[in-house]
Amino acid sequence: MKKKLPKVGEFGLIEKLKKFQRSSTRIVRGIGDDAAVLELDRRRYQLFTTDMLVEDVHFLGGVDPAALGHKAMAVNISDIAAMGGRPTFAVVSIGVPSGLSSRYIEAVYRGMRVCADRFGASIVGGDTVSADKLVINVALLGEVEKGRLVLRSGARPGDRIFVTGPLGGSLAFGRHLRFAPRLREARFLVERFRPSAMIDISDGLAGDLGHILRASGLSAWLDEERIPRRRGVTLEAALRDGEDFELLFTLSSLKAKKLLECKSVAKDFNFIDIGEIVAGHPGTRAGGLFLRDRCGIRRAVEMKGYTHF
Amino acid sequence: MKKKLPKVGEFGLIEKLKKFQRSSTRIVRGIGDDAAVLELDRRRYQLFTTDMLVEDVHFLGGVDPAALGHKAMAVNISDIAAMGGRPTFAVVSIGVPSGLSSRYIEAVYRGMRVCADRFGASIVGGDTVSADKLVINVALLGEVEKGRLVLRSGARPGDRIFVTGPLGGSLAFGRHLRFAPRLREARFLVERFRPSAMIDISDGLAGDLGHILRASGLSAWLDEERIPRRRGVTLEAALRDGEDFELLFTLSSLKAKKLLECKSVAKDFNFIDIGEIVAGHPGTRAGGLFLRDRCGIRRAVEMKGYTHF
Repeated sequence: MKKKLPKVGEFGLIEKLKKFQRSSTRIVRGIGDDAAVLELDRRRYQLFTTDMLVEDVHFLGGVDPAALGHKAMAVNISDIAAMGGRPTFAVVSIGVPSGLSSRYIEAVYRGMRVCADRFGASIVGGDTVSADKLVINVALLGEVEKGRLVLRSGARPGDRIFVTGPLGGSLAFGRHLRFAPRLREARFLVERFRPSAMIDISDGLAGDLGHILRASGLSAWLDEERIPRRRGVTLEAALRDGEDFELLFTLSSLKAKKLLECKSVAKDFNFIDIGEIVAGHPGTRAGGLFLRDRCGIRRAVEMKGYTHF
Repeated sequence: MKKKLPKVGEFGLIEKLKKFQRSSTRIVRGIGDDAAVLELDRRRYQLFTTDMLVEDVHFLGGVDPAALGHKAMAVNISDIAAMGGRPTFAVVSIGVPSGLSSRYIEAVYRGMRVCADRFGASIVGGDTVSADKLVINVALLGEVEKGRLVLRSGARPGDRIFVTGPLGGSLAFGRHLRFAPRLREARFLVERFRPSAMIDISDGLAGDLGHILRASGLSAWLDEERIPRRRGVTLEAALRDGEDFELLFTLSSLKAKKLLECKSVAKDFNFIDIGEIVAGHPGTRAGGLFLRDRCGIRRAVEMKGYTHF
């Protein structure tokens, strides 16, 4: 189901893509976060993101079409949520194999529509073409109040590291087709607690925390025992499996304390403190990502998840 | 190079897609024009469009990557131009076959970047995944002053019908990979002449004029002899071939006269008057699209281009 690109890794290519980005005073953040950030008006930024799902790479042929449509929309909504924003408008492209019934394709669209509706977005256009294998691309706009934008690059030494739910096994258990993007959690956080950095876990905890660390120029340690795992999942899988789509965010220790003491949080949300941001660039010898076991013994781990494509 | 979808035609599916569109007071026009039209601020609308290109459907493997990148961006810019707007920001998804070199993919991106630059747009994000065949999706934003928006639905009886250049043979001659979107022409027109309706010719003249006629609830005739044809192209090909990406627009007869008398127009542009909009719904027996030969004899023609996918 998964393939590797021997020569063009996703991260390498995205880095290279930066070369192709034209500078503009209206681009607040371009390539390199969950969504691009564009000047909208005095009060708000516009967010812009896109994701492509390909048959036999991201899903198998014959998969439940409504779940597939849901996922195609939800992964984009998750990107907007990770910036602290709300989704607004989507355009959708589908490459349709000739053998596929229009009923199947309509069910895919219905899945996208139901998901968009649920999170306040509207599908406003699209393109339908033929293809050998089913390909779905969603491009999604969003908006965020300027004071509530959260980037990957804002983590500070001493910040606590949180996730919004158990990790690992998302692909094996089919959760990646049914997950609910953590939009409500993200909006609660940006309205009440202003996280210093945030990302959605699509490349695996170790990979996405790596994105925060590299963007912030900092290191981190995680408490092995605190990393929430889905039932039957190894620590390694919780660290590396992709497509969890939980939020990973950092919060000053003072705010972290308040968050965990907040009664409405305990009732409505599942914010789990798993570690701490520390000084030191992750590229240096003493820097990077570390795990701490129950005896307090530290070991370095690679800032890499499963390369999911 | 071209395939047909036996069950899900592009138009049928796009019609069905309208069902999946959520209404919002911010959506001025959703599915059914060259781009979606969204409220932006008091002065401007935002435009939003997307197009997917698939290997072996829209292009052959091994095609010049810069030309391919150019086309992927240019077809979207053409959609924004057809609404009277200017392109602003793009996100780009690429599905990459494992055998393809990163040099090839970088050349595709460079082609997109050069085209975006030339027409004032910026690539601000993207997604790179693996796929069996090369797939490129561009989603593009644009902006248009509220008074300058042009829809397909605004044609009026008596309006003259224009195109911006010779038609037919675009796919056969490879022009579809190198065409320049008619952005300068479109902006000149909306700033100086306010066309009543406009579309870019992607489905063939007969097909795209059909879109204007159906959206406007009107009929039209074209002068056979006036339809500009690329060298060596039959009348039928000029009517039906897709991917010309010339603009097709309608203008009141008074404005049409002024346009043709304007000296700067004659010098800089190539606006060709090919026929007239007339009363009568195109779905009725007496309505539709007609050709008039040099003897003035009329014949009905199907409002259909070549289904290009």
